[in-house]
Amino acid sequence: MQAALKMLRLRSRITPLCLQSVRSASTAAASRNESFATLEDKDRNFFREVLGDSNVITDTDALQPLNEDWMGKYAGKSKLALRPKSTEQVSKVLAYCNDRRLAIVPQGGNTGLVGGSIPLFDEVILLTAGLNQVISFDAVSGTLVCQAGCILEHLDSQVSAQGFTMPLDLGAKGSCQIGGNVSTNAGGLRLLRYGSLHGSVLGIEAVLADGTVVDALQTLRKDNTGYDLKQLFIGSEGTLGVVTAVSLLCPPRSSSVHVCYLAVPDFATTQKVFVKARQRLGEILSAFEFFDQQALDLTLKHLEGIRNPLPDTQTPFYLVVETSGSNEEHDNEKLQSFLEEVMEEEMVLDGTIAQDSAQIAGIWGIREGISVALKHAGPVYKYDLSIPVAEMYDLVEETRQRMAHLPVEVVGYGHLGDGNLHLNVSCQKYDDEILRHIEPFVYEWTAARRGSISAEHGLGQMKAECIRYTKPQPVVDLMLQVKNTFDPNGILNPYKVLPQVMAVAQ
Amino acid sequence: MQAALKMLRLRSRITPLCLQSVRSASTAAASRNESFATLEDKDRNFFREVLGDSNVITDTDALQPLNEDWMGKYAGKSKLALRPKSTEQVSKVLAYCNDRRLAIVPQGGNTGLVGGSIPLFDEVILLTAGLNQVISFDAVSGTLVCQAGCILEHLDSQVSAQGFTMPLDLGAKGSCQIGGNVSTNAGGLRLLRYGSLHGSVLGIEAVLADGTVVDALQTLRKDNTGYDLKQLFIGSEGTLGVVTAVSLLCPPRSSSVHVCYLAVPDFATTQKVFVKARQRLGEILSAFEFFDQQALDLTLKHLEGIRNPLPDTQTPFYLVVETSGSNEEHDNEKLQSFLEEVMEEEMVLDGTIAQDSAQIAGIWGIREGISVALKHAGPVYKYDLSIPVAEMYDLVEETRQRMAHLPVEVVGYGHLGDGNLHLNVSCQKYDDEILRHIEPFVYEWTAARRGSISAEHGLGQMKAECIRYTKPQPVVDLMLQVKNTFDPNGILNPYKVLPQVMAVAQ
Repeated sequence: MQAALKMLRLRSRITPLCLQSVRSASTAAASRNESFATLEDKDRNFFREVLGDSNVITDTDALQPLNEDWMGKYAGKSKLALRPKSTEQVSKVLAYCNDRRLAIVPQGGNTGLVGGSIPLFDEVILLTAGLNQVISFDAVSGTLVCQAGCILEHLDSQVSAQGFTMPLDLGAKGSCQIGGNVSTNAGGLRLLRYGSLHGSVLGIEAVLADGTVVDALQTLRKDNTGYDLKQLFIGSEGTLGVVTAVSLLCPPRSSSVHVCYLAVPDFATTQKVFVKARQRLGEILSAFEFFDQQALDLTLKHLEGIRNPLPDTQTPFYLVVETSGSNEEHDNEKLQSFLEEVMEEEMVLDGTIAQDSAQIAGIWGIREGISVALKHAGPVYKYDLSIPVAEMYDLVEETRQRMAHLPVEVVGYGHLGDGNLHLNVSCQKYDDEILRHIEPFVYEWTAARRGSISAEHGLGQMKAECIRYTKPQPVVDLMLQVKNTFDPNGILNPYKVLPQVMAVAQ
Repeated sequence: MQAALKMLRLRSRITPLCLQSVRSASTAAASRNESFATLEDKDRNFFREVLGDSNVITDTDALQPLNEDWMGKYAGKSKLALRPKSTEQVSKVLAYCNDRRLAIVPQGGNTGLVGGSIPLFDEVILLTAGLNQVISFDAVSGTLVCQAGCILEHLDSQVSAQGFTMPLDLGAKGSCQIGGNVSTNAGGLRLLRYGSLHGSVLGIEAVLADGTVVDALQTLRKDNTGYDLKQLFIGSEGTLGVVTAVSLLCPPRSSSVHVCYLAVPDFATTQKVFVKARQRLGEILSAFEFFDQQALDLTLKHLEGIRNPLPDTQTPFYLVVETSGSNEEHDNEKLQSFLEEVMEEEMVLDGTIAQDSAQIAGIWGIREGISVALKHAGPVYKYDLSIPVAEMYDLVEETRQRMAHLPVEVVGYGHLGDGNLHLNVSCQKYDDEILRHIEPFVYEWTAARRGSISAEHGLGQMKAECIRYTKPQPVVDLMLQVKNTFDPNGILNPYKVLPQVMAVAQ
């Protein structure tokens, strides 16, 4: 770590609007930061020496999927990807890149939605996939320690076998990596029950831009010795350091899980059902998700093997309510009492309870499949907003109205229990005309309600210039100072998260 | 906020041992940092102008309780305390102090155990007691927004009336302030159930050393827009900024609460009972506390109105197990099944379940009274450690053995469910001879097990030089850089938390 702080002047270039346009031209940064070096033969040679030939990727075909995101929305031009297999190798790579001023993009499962793991120009891609070892699991406390490249679903299988569960779950679980989950502060389906990663991550090992290894990989539930620096790596999207390992507190796996699927007549009623669920289901309520008719239709149309649980019911809104508890009989009683009340009080038009794990998977398949179905349907503009629940769906309706004359489908779904809306505009091709109807309208609408323009997806390259819709200037200034303290040369995931900063030596 | 970063060299003065000696001579810093200014008439005049005469305290008698902690262990020599009533006033005071290089100690309820809110020399005391307004409470989501000086117990009463509970509870609740709780990342009795404040604090408003107001007082459950800076203020003990307001997520109040009191033959068995409690009580387990016979005896001897719930049973260990749930009948069944098993399997020698709220208060009165009883008993050396549960009580026994020839009483109790031991050495007077038998032994013993030398009390002035027993050097270095970024003149709570740093202009 360089002990002396560099004297830098922070100057923000603020774009007046946050228009994101098509493909790679859509990004916050219009031009490459020329203070970064360009790759030379000596660099490739150094990396081959440190990592071995097979972990230095220069082949254009092999680079192509690493240069693009899964939605086909962002594309970079990196000529080099590196696959270190140890923290020590990450440290050597970063120290070298820092000295050489080579910009770096850390990439985990590349399942993000805001272009956070995609280079904009010729940044070197640092893959975490080679860091894929489970280090330890304590089956009494439920503490898991593992490297960053472990895949979420694999980890969940491993801890499940010992009676625990991962504290987060999301649709991308089959490919996303835990290091990416932590770096982006992934939310997902279990947040309502187990809280955010800021609570369940116990420790982090990260490598700073200059190669310093920050060993904060503690496994203690409580530790008040100094600043909780690990928190800064949670959700900073690889701009402050590369997360190489994490320790997490896994909650005990519930022996009893129930899922029900409910049809609700209007959005106001979804909230009434939520209040009732909190009262009747109490501590066993583990998920409360909603989606609209448009989302259901898209999913039934575009995904194979999805069955409509209520084929005879057409209604604007559907809910997936999950309970997880330790006593089958008690949980059943609570669920029955909840369902009887919401049916009797006519909050719910129709509903079904999954009878076995296949049916549970079937119901979750609809909710988790929406994002994939949208991808199958064509290009999609995705927004991820925290909004007071009562007003949440107004935004979907207003957006729909604004775009009634355009060939788009506007879809709303999300984590109702957390106040988190996913607003998606599905279209035939990415088109600035469409975009102008969405932005900055969506951001301004959200800002006016003191909401967040990114509840769980992060800012990435999509929204780096838009942070001020949610955070006031002094807070952004302080973030820029923190960035400058951790990464004075700005080599880590440049052009992302924060507004473009020009570092000018005085 | 000063935009340009100061060029500073960080130099650590490390004391070889962490001996804490008697009263104010006991502190980490042996001498005043002479880069701080001393108070002049013009300063007092400025403060009177900003705050009004009655909020500028210069009277020696009035200052005396603010210069001392409640244990009578730490004492400072401040000649001035200020009581701002708004964030704006705090901002004006800090901006002035920063320009004048006047050092500041923020002080909430002054209930801390490590001298964190007590000046060492002539620092100005900044009282948060005047910031005592509840700003809002959302009775649907349970989101509380309030100023830093609100007293924890008052807040709990207010949110209780609307069906919620504060996410933390501790013995000092009648005097401690929420701003202090957040600034010290207070743990307490409900952490097992509701997690740490890093999870339940949704937003913070803080004032930086230069007077910049950091408005991160969001009320959103999810917000991934940039770095989660509020996390840095949680647990940094007022060294990075003065917390002026917080927003917190309050969980729904449980309609059914049960408390039982169990006598257990040995420490190994307490862990078996804990495993059984997690299995049988599952999601309704809300506290699992232990204390030893010595702690019980002290409490019965020194506190009035405390009744021994099991007067005919003498055993080395006692447990307080609490459940909180939403269904009285279900909770009762779970508790009965747990108790039957631990009795049948002879893990528990005897036990009692509180039959009403008075009995619940009676049992909690013992556990929460231990700290007060120790104070009544005389001077006490207090340690607060995170240790793997299996080895936790070994430390108490080894300490007892080391000091068998000295006139002391060694007492162990704490949050068994969180791996958090409170080790207390009660004596007749503070005495370096006694201290030499405890330190650095306790810290080294804990460090050897990768534990934490401060689970929940913080470092304050008591353990500022001891941080390296838990945190490696690169992590401490990074903390020093963060401190320097937030508070370049080092005026905020100097001599605390981090090893002494000399800021040398180059």
